[in-house]
Amino acid sequence: MSFEDLAYDVFQRRCPSRSALEHITGKWAVLILGALAQGPARFGALRRRVDGVSEKMLSQTLQTLERDGFVHREVHRQIPPHVEYSLTGLGRDTAAHLMTLVEFLEDRMDEVEQARTAHDERAE
Amino acid sequence: MSFEDLAYDVFQRRCPSRSALEHITGKWAVLILGALAQGPARFGALRRRVDGVSEKMLSQTLQTLERDGFVHREVHRQIPPHVEYSLTGLGRDTAAHLMTLVEFLEDRMDEVEQARTAHDERAE
Repeated sequence: MSFEDLAYDVFQRRCPSRSALEHITGKWAVLILGALAQGPARFGALRRRVDGVSEKMLSQTLQTLERDGFVHREVHRQIPPHVEYSLTGLGRDTAAHLMTLVEFLEDRMDEVEQARTAHDERAE
Repeated sequence: MSFEDLAYDVFQRRCPSRSALEHITGKWAVLILGALAQGPARFGALRRRVDGVSEKMLSQTLQTLERDGFVHREVHRQIPPHVEYSLTGLGRDTAAHLMTLVEFLEDRMDEVEQARTAHDERAE
């Protein structure tokens, strides 16, 4: 990691990369980016794919990811009109990194569950 | 990604991998795991490295990461005693994935900032 004056550094609280990191690693953002990595989707389809997300949180997260340039929102002016969400180039690259992390974690969940059990037994 | 009955799947809200993902991608967890990737550290050193973290959030996040098996807490019984935090093998692998993501994001922050500016100009 670089520590040049002009370099981005998430460890510095005022660096704009800090908020971008929080946006892409947010509770719902990882799953929404992962769902969109499978292809463009409408709001309802995203909501079904990301089990547990509320309309409000899905809407807010999509807006944040759109402002940061990870998600593209397209209004199709047909009858009836509909809105489709997709990943930008930046969003695709980001989602690929996040899904690598997710697959790694799913692969290692046995270790996590063993650690949790051992920890809770020690605490009893 | 696998959809076998017994496979972990973060997209399912009740899967234990969902909470583990939230723990490692939490607002402070990414930075704490990244800081510990540079080597074992005491509480005060971690607090200085992770700019902006409160004592309470650092303490809570370390406890969560310890329970999940990412972080090891060692009490050195010398005089005066001191506590040192380090990554487990699982924590090291996780931190490596997270730091790859962080470096990717820092590299692409110009695109994020351009997107933010363009979005806010359209909204005016």
